[in-house]
Formats: sequence, structure tokens, C-alpha cells
Amino acid sequence: MTSHKTLVPVAVLGLGAMGRALAGAFLDAGHPTTVWNRSEGKGEDLLARGAVLAPTAEAAVRSAELTVVCVVDYGASQAILEPLADALAGRVLVNLTSDSPERAGTAAAWADEHGIAYLDGAVMVPTPLVGGADALILFAGARPAFEKYETTLKALAGQAAYLGENHALAAVYDLSMLDFFYASMSGLVHAFALAREDNVAATALAPYLDSITAILPAIASGMATAIDAGDYDGRQANLGMMTASVDHLLHMSRDRGLDTGQLEAIKAVADRAIAKGHGADDWASTIEVLKVKD
Amino acid sequence: MTSHKTLVPVAVLGLGAMGRALAGAFLDAGHPTTVWNRSEGKGEDLLARGAVLAPTAEAAVRSAELTVVCVVDYGASQAILEPLADALAGRVLVNLTSDSPERAGTAAAWADEHGIAYLDGAVMVPTPLVGGADALILFAGARPAFEKYETTLKALAGQAAYLGENHALAAVYDLSMLDFFYASMSGLVHAFALAREDNVAATALAPYLDSITAILPAIASGMATAIDAGDYDGRQANLGMMTASVDHLLHMSRDRGLDTGQLEAIKAVADRAIAKGHGADDWASTIEVLKVKD
Repeated sequence: MTSHKTLVPVAVLGLGAMGRALAGAFLDAGHPTTVWNRSEGKGEDLLARGAVLAPTAEAAVRSAELTVVCVVDYGASQAILEPLADALAGRVLVNLTSDSPERAGTAAAWADEHGIAYLDGAVMVPTPLVGGADALILFAGARPAFEKYETTLKALAGQAAYLGENHALAAVYDLSMLDFFYASMSGLVHAFALAREDNVAATALAPYLDSITAILPAIASGMATAIDAGDYDGRQANLGMMTASVDHLLHMSRDRGLDTGQLEAIKAVADRAIAKGHGADDWASTIEVLKVKD
Repeated sequence: MTSHKTLVPVAVLGLGAMGRALAGAFLDAGHPTTVWNRSEGKGEDLLARGAVLAPTAEAAVRSAELTVVCVVDYGASQAILEPLADALAGRVLVNLTSDSPERAGTAAAWADEHGIAYLDGAVMVPTPLVGGADALILFAGARPAFEKYETTLKALAGQAAYLGENHALAAVYDLSMLDFFYASMSGLVHAFALAREDNVAATALAPYLDSITAILPAIASGMATAIDAGDYDGRQANLGMMTASVDHLLHMSRDRGLDTGQLEAIKAVADRAIAKGHGADDWASTIEVLKVKD
């Protein structure tokens, strides 16, 4: 892809699977792209696509207006970045390494101390989708940097979303989304197991599970409103009735010799909420008993 | 609504919230509808809409070609139905009471013994949606009865789905769908709790959770194919990496004082699958360790 305007020169530090995908997306969008990896022999395919391989991380940073780092964790990213403080000063650093909100905050304080415009981010799609119109990457931190480089960042993900100035936000959203994701994934497999015990093929059941998935956005939206307001109207379906249904699933699963850990954990929380007086409220009220320690 | 053809006369036994919704849907579609409830004083609103209140369940059944029963459980439905065996013989009985696959089988055997064309069903939508184009009701059992009365049953649910001749199938699909539903619901609330600990409002997070929901149908479909084939290719995302991510969520949740029961249960299953050699397989492979007892 060519452009009449000169596109922002970028650097990508870390050429694991995700780093290579990010560099590839920059190249596809026509950005002058310099890459670097701690160990040698990675990213050969990127050179063939027009990337420049820098001899040092510092040289990569100095060649670019905006540097993206994506490595295994913040321990690894700080090990790479700390010697580069002078080179990064006055430039934009985008850290797409996954880690905790706490470590995002620590990294942001370091960047601030060194005059680096810093964005923390989380890539929410697998590598093959990076660079696509539907790809979602979350960003948080330096608002002026996001606004100035939004077009550049959209080369990585059509859905480049800015969450706010608190650098930890990308990690918080990332973790919360994953929390929902794994609960659903685990529920899917258990549903297939339950059906299989009664000789129903997974491929026969799957289209029907989609009818559950189809109602989740409306449920999530309704729950969110209820949670933020602390108002758990249970006229539609109340926790008492729903917990009886979970108990029924628990007995059915036990009867078929299936693992009941997830169902037991769900029921324990619901029972605790009922004991606290939420029996006639809706399921969202269980949030009020999820905090078990201060 | 009027019709030039005379519509099938129907009876509805049981006028709880769901029974009333079902009778209302038949009335809206123009069916001559007779209703009956064990205790008096229910369904007055249905009479105003044109229903006929029968003095006895037998009278209701004898007034109709097709009888729908929807009560609290199969104990209650059999208590109503058993004295009606003669009246029901040669007619169609549709039991929309929720219960276990085992009890669906027992009820079907009873119906068969008495020459009753029997469909077992499960209503998959809340009462306000009954009768709508998007409403889903699952049916299983007597195929000729379903085929003959499909149009009549579509008055109750635009998506009237026939699953097969085994009467237990409606209950099996119902339970499997609910199994996925509660896991997801519980995951949603936990995600909102995790975000709240870091001062992110539920209404701010909810739209991002939709981006997870959006990928679930493709995941369910891929999992189903893998499960039926017993082929768990983990090139895209393997169980080992994903379990590390669950472990990270577990630590984050514990650190914030949140309940970790569901995450611990998910991790225990994943760890067991990894111990059995599925670390490089995909998440669907956990189904192979869900059967814990024969």
C-alpha cells in the first residue's frame, strides 16, 4: 500500500507472534517500520516485507516517532525499556504487553518520570486478526498521544479504543473481559458434556447455544445498569427461582458423573446472596456477595 | 384476530404465569381456547380475551384436539394427567412442564401405554416473549403430531423446534442450554465485580463484554466440531497458555478480595486436562476430563 503523505515512522520491539503481527500490520498500512528483538533470527519475513531490522533497541526507538513494545510481561518490557529512557524522552511509547493493572501503573510512573508520552494497551484479538477492521485493541494513558496517533494505531486494529487517562484501565478491561470469556468457555464445554451424556452430539446442540448467546448482550446491559444503580429488580426472573434451576443442573450433572465444580461455585455465591436477602432480586445482585475480603 | 378457516381448538391445563402466557398466545392467534386450573380464581383476564373456563380438566381436554399442560414439575403434571388417560387417548398432549430427561421418559411411556400422541417440550423464553416470532420452544416425541400441529404450536413460539423422537431430548437441550447460561451469567457478574474493584463502572465495561459475546457462536461451533471428532487442535490458542491466563485472573481476584470459586473450579478442570496431556490442545479438550465418575 502506498500513500502520498509520508506515514509516521514506527518501531516494534519484541518479535514474538504478536509483535510480528503488529509489525506486519504497520507494514501493510505503509508505515516505515523498524523492528528489533532481544534474541536474533526473528522477523526475517518482516524484512522481506520492507521492515528495517535495527541493531539495537535504541536505534529502533531513535528511528521512529512511535514505539510499540509487546513482550511476555512487564518484567521483560521494563528490562528492555529502562536503558532507553533518554531515547524515548519526547517520543511516544505504546506498551501492548499483557500484565496486571498494578504493573501498568508502575510502568506509567516510570515513563512519566522520564518525559515519555506513554500509552498502555491490550490486544483483544488473536494474531491472525491484528490489523483488521474488526480487531479490538484497548488503549489507556496519555490522551494527547492517542489523539495525535489514532490513525497510526488504527493500522493495528480498526477498533482502537481509548479508555481514559488512568494507564491501568487497559489491563482492567482486558482482565474483566477475560474473566467473562473463561467462565463462558468453561460453561460451553460443560453444556456439551451434559448433552453428550444423553447422546446429543455437540454439533446438534451448538446452534441452540447460540440462542443463549444472542440474549447475553441485553442481559449484560441490564445487569450493568442494575449494578451501577444498586437496584436489583427481580420481577423478570428472580435469584431464588434461578438458583433452584442451578441446583437442578447440579443434581443432573452429579447423577451423570460429571464434574460439578463450576456449578457448585455458582450455587454457593447465589445461596450467599439469597441468605443476605436477595432471593427476590435478579441475578446481578450476586455482585453484592462477591467481595469476600477487604 | 379472525380467520376464515376454523383453527384447531386447544386446551391449556395449568394457569401459572407460563400457562397464562401460552393460553394468551393461542387466543391471540385466534384458536378456540379452553383453560383449566387446579385451584380457582386464575385466568380471569383470559376469559375476558375469549377463553372458555372448563369446570374440570377432563372437560377441557374433551373440548380440544390438542392439550398443553404447563405446571411446576412432572409430579404435578402426572397428578393432573393420569385420571385423564381415557379423555386424552387419540388426542395430542403437549407437556411444557420443565423437569429431568428421566421423568420425560417416564411420562412418555405412560402416554404411549394409553394411546396418547405425546410431545414433550421446553419453553426457552420468559413469559413476555411467548407467542413472538423470536420465541423458542423445543419439542420432542411424536413426530406425526408435531408435523400435523406445527402451525398450531407456532402460535406459541415462532421458533418451534422439533428435536427428535426421543421424548427426553427437549429436557436434555433445555438443561444443556441452561448450563451454559448460568456459567455465562455468573461470569458476567464476576467480570463486573473485577472491574468495579478498579473503579470501572459496569455500564462502561458492558459494551466491551459484547465483543466477547460476539465471538462465542464461532467458538461454540468450532468446539462442537472438535468434540464430535475428538480432535482438539490447539494451534490457535492452547490450553496451557489459556490456563496461565486463568491463573492470572485467579490471583488478581484473590488480591482484590473477590470470591474465586468459579475460577478455581475452571482451573482445576484445565489443570486436570493438562495433566492428561492436553496442554497443547484447545480448550474443548477439557470435556475429556469432565466425566469424573461412571
